[in-house]
Amino acid sequence: MGTKKPVILVVNDDGITAPGIKVLLEEMKQLGEVIVVAPEGPQSGMGHAITIGKPLRIDKVDLYEGVKMYKSSGTPVDCVKLAVNKVLKGRLPDLCVSGINHGLNSSINILYSGTMSAAVEGAIEGIPSIGFSYDDFSQDADFSQCRPYVRAIAEEVLKNGLPDGTLLNVNFPKVDKLAGVKICRQAKAKWAEEFDERMDPYKRSYYWLTGVFKSEDRGEDTDVWALQHGYVSVVPVQFDMTAHHFIPQLNAWSFDLSP
Amino acid sequence: MGTKKPVILVVNDDGITAPGIKVLLEEMKQLGEVIVVAPEGPQSGMGHAITIGKPLRIDKVDLYEGVKMYKSSGTPVDCVKLAVNKVLKGRLPDLCVSGINHGLNSSINILYSGTMSAAVEGAIEGIPSIGFSYDDFSQDADFSQCRPYVRAIAEEVLKNGLPDGTLLNVNFPKVDKLAGVKICRQAKAKWAEEFDERMDPYKRSYYWLTGVFKSEDRGEDTDVWALQHGYVSVVPVQFDMTAHHFIPQLNAWSFDLSP
Repeated sequence: MGTKKPVILVVNDDGITAPGIKVLLEEMKQLGEVIVVAPEGPQSGMGHAITIGKPLRIDKVDLYEGVKMYKSSGTPVDCVKLAVNKVLKGRLPDLCVSGINHGLNSSINILYSGTMSAAVEGAIEGIPSIGFSYDDFSQDADFSQCRPYVRAIAEEVLKNGLPDGTLLNVNFPKVDKLAGVKICRQAKAKWAEEFDERMDPYKRSYYWLTGVFKSEDRGEDTDVWALQHGYVSVVPVQFDMTAHHFIPQLNAWSFDLSP
Repeated sequence: MGTKKPVILVVNDDGITAPGIKVLLEEMKQLGEVIVVAPEGPQSGMGHAITIGKPLRIDKVDLYEGVKMYKSSGTPVDCVKLAVNKVLKGRLPDLCVSGINHGLNSSINILYSGTMSAAVEGAIEGIPSIGFSYDDFSQDADFSQCRPYVRAIAEEVLKNGLPDGTLLNVNFPKVDKLAGVKICRQAKAKWAEEFDERMDPYKRSYYWLTGVFKSEDRGEDTDVWALQHGYVSVVPVQFDMTAHHFIPQLNAWSFDLSP
């Protein structure tokens, strides 16, 4: 990095006024020059959505001293694309951090999470990227225990880089005292959905999507296990989704084109 | 499957009136009992988004004879969740097919694609799932060459099943004569974004997200290669996104919590 301060892109999915992003940019300000591009409102559960059917807006805002900030009408992934292409004019930042999300993004939640999808997009663009999430949805969430870990993990990534096509998914449990860092794999789990039915004033029913997170994975090397035991979970993530192990078997299938 | 006809769930991201889903349900009707749950309008680029900030609607529609059809206000992933939980009351269908998408979903597009995310969600729910996409955006797209392959691939999956946590991403090139099926890995590629700037009547600028798809991957075992050479590409996909290869190295990192 030489004598120049690293450029750090900060994004999130809870929106630019969320407490979590403030914590993240405060910590990143200690490590480099911070640029924030975040959704103007909440975009939780947006996954890797991009905006292609309607126009995108991006506007400069001035919320915190010494930080270049932009809000966008787009999704978390749009924010990363806009940051790299419009704000930084194609120059890649040295680090992309996303979060700190209000709510865990362990296990399968990486797919639904706008926070993690923004970090994935950062990695696709070629930026060393990290997503951070904390198990507290409250606007008064106390991030003080997370802060030194966020800084330490970001510093390691700035120092060592990350392999091409790889990023980190970091989750913090809500405990009295964090037990340290555990490197993990993504637990096998899923949501048991529930649809909460209501009736509108016109007597038409509608639903709210809710559910219960269920892990079927008894492994002690998973992010779910680590979080249950008070550890900060760190999962290295890749976006090559090929099931390489199944290719040989699939090559033995026959695709009979009889009508 | 015994003597009972398999139950086949059909979803897409182009919306319930798209030509591609009509082709898919026509082919699936030859193999089993078809249930369609699809977005009421286009949901391209929605990735794995779910609807958590607003209510969901689902309504029965009657478009094609002999097929149970529902349209939903939700995303493609919502449609799969609604199908399993509300329409099928928790009973899993024997197969979930998504598409036929208008436009390719090879390589990294699996992350942005609502079509593929619906198939991924099917696999998360425990259903053998396949996403189909064809390189033609036209409302008059001619799917006739795709049809026998769609049927043959679906038949193989009904016969053999798929390993837990695995689904198929099937793409059709637009060529005079398809060269056959090729089992592939996901090509390493990305979008070089471009933001097309416009001015609204109030003199505020806005952007349309566009871009050029760029593959850096010279491998001849990729979906991009197969499609360029006239083959139907079949990529086995998994949603464990752990970069297992990087765990040992990451375990050697130190996370120094000095303030």
